[in-house]
Amino acid sequence: MTARITELIARKRDGGELDAQELRAMIDPGVPDYQLSAFLMAVVLRGMSRRETADLLEAMVDSGERVSWPWPVADKHSTGGVGDKTTIVLAPLVAACGALVAKMSGRGLGHTGGTLDKLESIPGMRVSLSLAGMRRQVEQVGIAVCGQTAELAPADGRMYALRDATATVNSLPLIATSIMSKKIAAGATRLLLDVKVGEGAFMADRGSARELGRLMVDVGRDHGIDARAMLSGMEEPLGNAVGNAVEVREAVATLRGEGPEDLRELCLHAAGELVGDRAAAERALASGEAYERYERWIAAQGGDPAAPLPEAPVIMDVPAPREGVVQRCHALAVGRAAAALGAGRTRKEDAVDHAVGIVVLRKRGDVVERGEPLARVHARGEVDAEAVAACFEIGDEPADRAPLILEMLDA
Amino acid sequence: MTARITELIARKRDGGELDAQELRAMIDPGVPDYQLSAFLMAVVLRGMSRRETADLLEAMVDSGERVSWPWPVADKHSTGGVGDKTTIVLAPLVAACGALVAKMSGRGLGHTGGTLDKLESIPGMRVSLSLAGMRRQVEQVGIAVCGQTAELAPADGRMYALRDATATVNSLPLIATSIMSKKIAAGATRLLLDVKVGEGAFMADRGSARELGRLMVDVGRDHGIDARAMLSGMEEPLGNAVGNAVEVREAVATLRGEGPEDLRELCLHAAGELVGDRAAAERALASGEAYERYERWIAAQGGDPAAPLPEAPVIMDVPAPREGVVQRCHALAVGRAAAALGAGRTRKEDAVDHAVGIVVLRKRGDVVERGEPLARVHARGEVDAEAVAACFEIGDEPADRAPLILEMLDA
Repeated sequence: MTARITELIARKRDGGELDAQELRAMIDPGVPDYQLSAFLMAVVLRGMSRRETADLLEAMVDSGERVSWPWPVADKHSTGGVGDKTTIVLAPLVAACGALVAKMSGRGLGHTGGTLDKLESIPGMRVSLSLAGMRRQVEQVGIAVCGQTAELAPADGRMYALRDATATVNSLPLIATSIMSKKIAAGATRLLLDVKVGEGAFMADRGSARELGRLMVDVGRDHGIDARAMLSGMEEPLGNAVGNAVEVREAVATLRGEGPEDLRELCLHAAGELVGDRAAAERALASGEAYERYERWIAAQGGDPAAPLPEAPVIMDVPAPREGVVQRCHALAVGRAAAALGAGRTRKEDAVDHAVGIVVLRKRGDVVERGEPLARVHARGEVDAEAVAACFEIGDEPADRAPLILEMLDA
Repeated sequence: MTARITELIARKRDGGELDAQELRAMIDPGVPDYQLSAFLMAVVLRGMSRRETADLLEAMVDSGERVSWPWPVADKHSTGGVGDKTTIVLAPLVAACGALVAKMSGRGLGHTGGTLDKLESIPGMRVSLSLAGMRRQVEQVGIAVCGQTAELAPADGRMYALRDATATVNSLPLIATSIMSKKIAAGATRLLLDVKVGEGAFMADRGSARELGRLMVDVGRDHGIDARAMLSGMEEPLGNAVGNAVEVREAVATLRGEGPEDLRELCLHAAGELVGDRAAAERALASGEAYERYERWIAAQGGDPAAPLPEAPVIMDVPAPREGVVQRCHALAVGRAAAALGAGRTRKEDAVDHAVGIVVLRKRGDVVERGEPLARVHARGEVDAEAVAACFEIGDEPADRAPLILEMLDA
């Protein structure tokens, strides 16, 4: 067995291909971590063909249970960015349009936040559901959002942990199979993939983002999922709030018809793609049905949608060091500054501080006077105002808003 | 720590360099195998600079004890081939010329044999010595040859086992540091590296063999070792015997002034390089001093040099299927055929059969009649004569002897 696995690693090392059975053998739980990680590094540096990617995906899905819902189920996946609270708006919005949403989300790491951490800033909110509990809740309120269960695609769980520790995250086929194995195992029938592009995202350039989106759509369709991908900009934070409770507040405002324009637009566009009717989504938002659905969803998971969210003891505005036009509010820098306040985690075992965060008050194209606030910081103690001010580039030239939706990838 | 290690792996993955301290951190026993193996794969595919190789070597040597002998000590290392019994002839030959030999050897794997397995076919022979026992023996008889001790370069022991299981053996810096870390830790002051070139060797082409030899000589000299390298041919087996007891018999014959010409020539050449005086080596062989030294060495390690060696129950000659001139006796094929008889092992935990093997009777350039024996097989049971005959290529053109010593690499 071990000798055979060594041969498979050698073949990938030399740029060759593995067949379906060989890929299945490679990710078998009996293969030691040290062999799997050498293989993953070889994949990062040598790549995988489209056929290998499909076969690896199949093997990952088959490593665990596969949920089958009695109704069509919509799901959305974002590759992660700064200020991305889309799920909290989109899930009730889509449900209010009559679609069922059963979604598994993740936690934040590094400068990007995670939906589960954000939801947990709502008092009482539970994000750990069994498959049975998830199904019951989808039947009752049309939405369930919870953490990944160990029953679905366990091979991905193992590979993901190994990749994280061995610098083998950066590989389109490995990213695509990791995301899609969970979506397929979780039984999604309609899927919108939001591939973020820019310095605040995993994919810094549009070419790789397009390639990743294309690959996920293709392998999703192989599995009968109505998948499409959207490339969206992540040079600046999405919306204004970056943190946990601050992001929930902004999501709720958006569901109430307030909230920042870019977040509202992205959610309406995504809802239009998922339910096939943008006008219906606009009506659901305007009528309050989307917000009402949010309240029912949160309550179903034990949360109190009316309870006050955690507040940070220090709230401080960071002033503009000069007058001019904001050329850029750097997503990566804001994400890092929020994480430094305690809103994010640098190691998986760290806890997050739900109250802290940064609310950006100016973005690209905004005119500011010297001393006017650029951002409001919610902190536990002392604030490094200079680090926050340094997230903004102010110049003299007029500037357009940063582009939001860059491209749609259909079949 | 883990996060830091991940960054180091990422840098090598992207083709960057690690400094001395970073390489030391990378091979620390606290780093999990899965991180080390991902790093090793990145090294195989991205390479290492000369400076990194030297720093890795230093870290590997420092992972364990370092022997310092009170006298200059000669050592020789072969990268492994088929029928390579050089150590058994060379150690006593060099000792008879007044040099002290303290050598750690290995076991066979795949189609290449190992000196320890060969020595163990001598009744009573012990190949496991402590460092103290080794030193005592070198003082008394001028030679000690034994297995690797865990005290020397333990980082190499761990890396070697991982590389073997993860298809990360093929890397010049990793091969060079593995070999040289043990030689430096074992305190060699003069070292001859025999880099075998050809299908029966680890290095199939002369360019890579030269690069490996050059690298080992250079890093050895950095550490004050008088190192030189010799590239020698391994298209055909060295000498005639391939196995364990059959090889000891041939080594003894060579020490007695008999034995095949190529083995004798290689040993005299190597001895000349190690003691700086080929004529002295020729005299030691002719006078019987080398053989006498062999007897004292074997006896010191508990072996009986006069005892009969294990004999296989079946001895069978394999006839030439046609008349003509031997164009080639394929080293790799002979090595595999001997291993299939039981002389080698396919897995490290296998035992070897000391009695079995193949004695090649014809090599490149020899004229044969149809039906004349090409090889004599020593077997435990049935013999696959066709497989042995298939090791030989017979044609009509005259052919020169295969070249023996291809090149010397000095400083």
